[in-house]
Amino acid sequence: MTVFAAFSNDEILADLKANVTAGSVITDPATLKKQSFSPNLTDDDSGLALAFIEAHSTADVQGVLKTARKYHVPVVTQNRFTSTVIGADGIAGSFILSTAGMNQIKEISKADSLAVVEPGVINGDLDQAARKQGMFYAPDPGSKPISGIGGNVATNAGGMSTVKYGATKDNVLGLKVVLADGRELKLGGRTLKQAFGYDLTQLFVGSEGTLGIITEITVKLMPIPLGTPVMGMAFFENMTALAEAVAEIRISGVYPTMLEAMDHPTIQAIDQYDGTDYSKESGAMLIFKIDNGTKQAMDVLNALLTKHGARDITVTEKPEEQAQLEKVRRDMLPAIFTGQNHIMEDMAMPLSQLAPMMDYIKQVGQDLGLKIYTAGHAGDGNVHPSIVWPIEEKGVPAKVSQALSLMFKKTLALGGTISGEHAVGMLKNQWNNAELGEDVDMLQHQIKALLDPMNLLNPKRKIN
Amino acid sequence: MTVFAAFSNDEILADLKANVTAGSVITDPATLKKQSFSPNLTDDDSGLALAFIEAHSTADVQGVLKTARKYHVPVVTQNRFTSTVIGADGIAGSFILSTAGMNQIKEISKADSLAVVEPGVINGDLDQAARKQGMFYAPDPGSKPISGIGGNVATNAGGMSTVKYGATKDNVLGLKVVLADGRELKLGGRTLKQAFGYDLTQLFVGSEGTLGIITEITVKLMPIPLGTPVMGMAFFENMTALAEAVAEIRISGVYPTMLEAMDHPTIQAIDQYDGTDYSKESGAMLIFKIDNGTKQAMDVLNALLTKHGARDITVTEKPEEQAQLEKVRRDMLPAIFTGQNHIMEDMAMPLSQLAPMMDYIKQVGQDLGLKIYTAGHAGDGNVHPSIVWPIEEKGVPAKVSQALSLMFKKTLALGGTISGEHAVGMLKNQWNNAELGEDVDMLQHQIKALLDPMNLLNPKRKIN
Repeated sequence: MTVFAAFSNDEILADLKANVTAGSVITDPATLKKQSFSPNLTDDDSGLALAFIEAHSTADVQGVLKTARKYHVPVVTQNRFTSTVIGADGIAGSFILSTAGMNQIKEISKADSLAVVEPGVINGDLDQAARKQGMFYAPDPGSKPISGIGGNVATNAGGMSTVKYGATKDNVLGLKVVLADGRELKLGGRTLKQAFGYDLTQLFVGSEGTLGIITEITVKLMPIPLGTPVMGMAFFENMTALAEAVAEIRISGVYPTMLEAMDHPTIQAIDQYDGTDYSKESGAMLIFKIDNGTKQAMDVLNALLTKHGARDITVTEKPEEQAQLEKVRRDMLPAIFTGQNHIMEDMAMPLSQLAPMMDYIKQVGQDLGLKIYTAGHAGDGNVHPSIVWPIEEKGVPAKVSQALSLMFKKTLALGGTISGEHAVGMLKNQWNNAELGEDVDMLQHQIKALLDPMNLLNPKRKIN
Repeated sequence: MTVFAAFSNDEILADLKANVTAGSVITDPATLKKQSFSPNLTDDDSGLALAFIEAHSTADVQGVLKTARKYHVPVVTQNRFTSTVIGADGIAGSFILSTAGMNQIKEISKADSLAVVEPGVINGDLDQAARKQGMFYAPDPGSKPISGIGGNVATNAGGMSTVKYGATKDNVLGLKVVLADGRELKLGGRTLKQAFGYDLTQLFVGSEGTLGIITEITVKLMPIPLGTPVMGMAFFENMTALAEAVAEIRISGVYPTMLEAMDHPTIQAIDQYDGTDYSKESGAMLIFKIDNGTKQAMDVLNALLTKHGARDITVTEKPEEQAQLEKVRRDMLPAIFTGQNHIMEDMAMPLSQLAPMMDYIKQVGQDLGLKIYTAGHAGDGNVHPSIVWPIEEKGVPAKVSQALSLMFKKTLALGGTISGEHAVGMLKNQWNNAELGEDVDMLQHQIKALLDPMNLLNPKRKIN
């Protein structure tokens, strides 16, 4: 359909350029293509965005929205574009508003135990800056070296240490957000306790660019705990035994900082990638960490591991050996994904349902003849099954979609959520009703409509 | 003004009685009076509520709302009526909907580290039930023996251990709430990680009965930490020195569970009440607790206390001596309040602003000739100045109002919040704009209007 009397792209872009810092509007097709499509997850045959804007300031964000309101142009906010759920793909004819360039650490206050950052600050950079002052930033998603705090907030990113320190939402004290109407709101603040009015800070955490654009974040910093951190690994007959051990460790009073599980296919992939031989005798591997490995804690841990049949338990206090263990965990994704098409899922289960879910995932793989690698942050019930398929096969195979659908339904039946720490994105948009129920789904849309009445902000995140 | 053609109270009450469990509607004036006015804080010369309803079920809650919608009757939800901010006072002609009688612990799951409770369950009862299974419920407001979990959620109650375990909001996983339109929503769930959609659970935490009525709460339970809990006390020259010590302890890696401060007038009151002599030589008292008092932690703590001039530091591992220390802290309120009119305030400061705020409060007391006792959860920057005045003096004296106003303005100027853990209520309603700013204040009201378009729920909590 041809629309008559439409505004020309040139006219829209001229208005946009007048509203933002000179040079920040990029329209070359290569950039638009690169920033519009999640590699591996989306086809690149839908139309390109109209412009990619590198915001340098709140004024730039407001300028983009001004033009967007004038011409009703959709705005997809993008941070470091590391979404695993097609959370920040461009939309044909849209503005892709990047906050990656707003990347200043504005303040690290040891006295107030907090940091104030712009959204483009990379998680790992913030953590390093905090550690220089004897503190640390707790949330540690797998994307820590590449993802921005703004994206972490927009998706409520978790990580390995969520089991002890909570997810991003538990570590955000305050936000500045620009609404679709251009006003910048200041939410929350610099205090550890806050009980005045509705917690709108938390409304924006996990809102995936659909309610406003995050321009500043105040986060808690934690003191580095006293004592000697201990890490270790242990091997189990299978993931079910591992999950049962983890459930007991979780409530033992040990307060682990990390309880990472990998199933047999995952260990095999790591062996192949790293030249190790962990998979020889074991069906499942656990990597654990305790901030303060007192003798009592290590005794309790050891007893529980042994009770559930763990073999070859090793522990180390040496930083270089701990770094090696972290590398094993970190190598997991390239080990699985290199040279294959892949999709990684992200369910979080009630702790008691972790083992049944592990069994179910394995069964689905067998039934459908799919290669599924399952790993996860077992200590908080978060499982990441990854399904791979040959690189030659374009698009997501029907069997893979079927497996995802089965796993999501089972997750909900067992009382879990289909998004533990990656958020929803376009990938799971269709599951709003199944996850939330009609009433809550509707209420979410009512809040969206209240804050963004023109439906400009990441409009495809919600089915329209 | 006489309204013609109004519905009679009898007609309204007949409709109400038809909609709820028989016998749950109470209209005798003594009950209405008792449940309508916060003792000491509100005058009892405004009109009485129309009825006090003891809800026994979600159906009762829905029944009350059905009549409320039909006749446009305001509904004030009341839990255990322990608000310190006039949060649940009746309104003339309103329904007071009590959820105190919905007090079943529906489930304690060690395997999932959670409990599911009705709103009337008393905080301390839940904690005791959890401890029988080797877990505990962390939030421990001063009202722990008397306040209900529903009220704790509605006010985002904190407590002494918030410094380590967070406030109520950090410990709520899911809610059931009945909206003004009668629908019951299920929000959140049983998983430790959740990243699907807007976090509406947190929207209801701290919403003070203005958005919906909480009918069920799923809370985290924590494992009892390994190690030996150590408690102790230390005395300082003044509150400023104490606050400076606390600021350093807070970021030292010790991770205390309790850092409770009391100023000189408070210690004097305790001495008088308990027959002790803590006030003889000291200007300020700190009571502290560490869950796992390793030698390293105690050495660090001791060094920091000494650095800031602490005297007479005592520590104990003995449970009976720890109970005695807890009693000293608990006796604080009766020691201050008995036989006097009083108001206790609740500011939370950025940690670095605790000492300046302490100084300011003292100055206000001196300038206005008021008796102010200041204590608080120093470890999270939460201060509770209490102002007292003679029991004979009816109403809140002008000087007391003036002192509160000065302290609130100073709090906001220093980057704090005027409600750390008690919420807002009628007491601080007027401060919405000062605390939040006009834009956020307006947005809060827009959300209120979205969820409660007839403005039935606790309508006086927000200025109308």
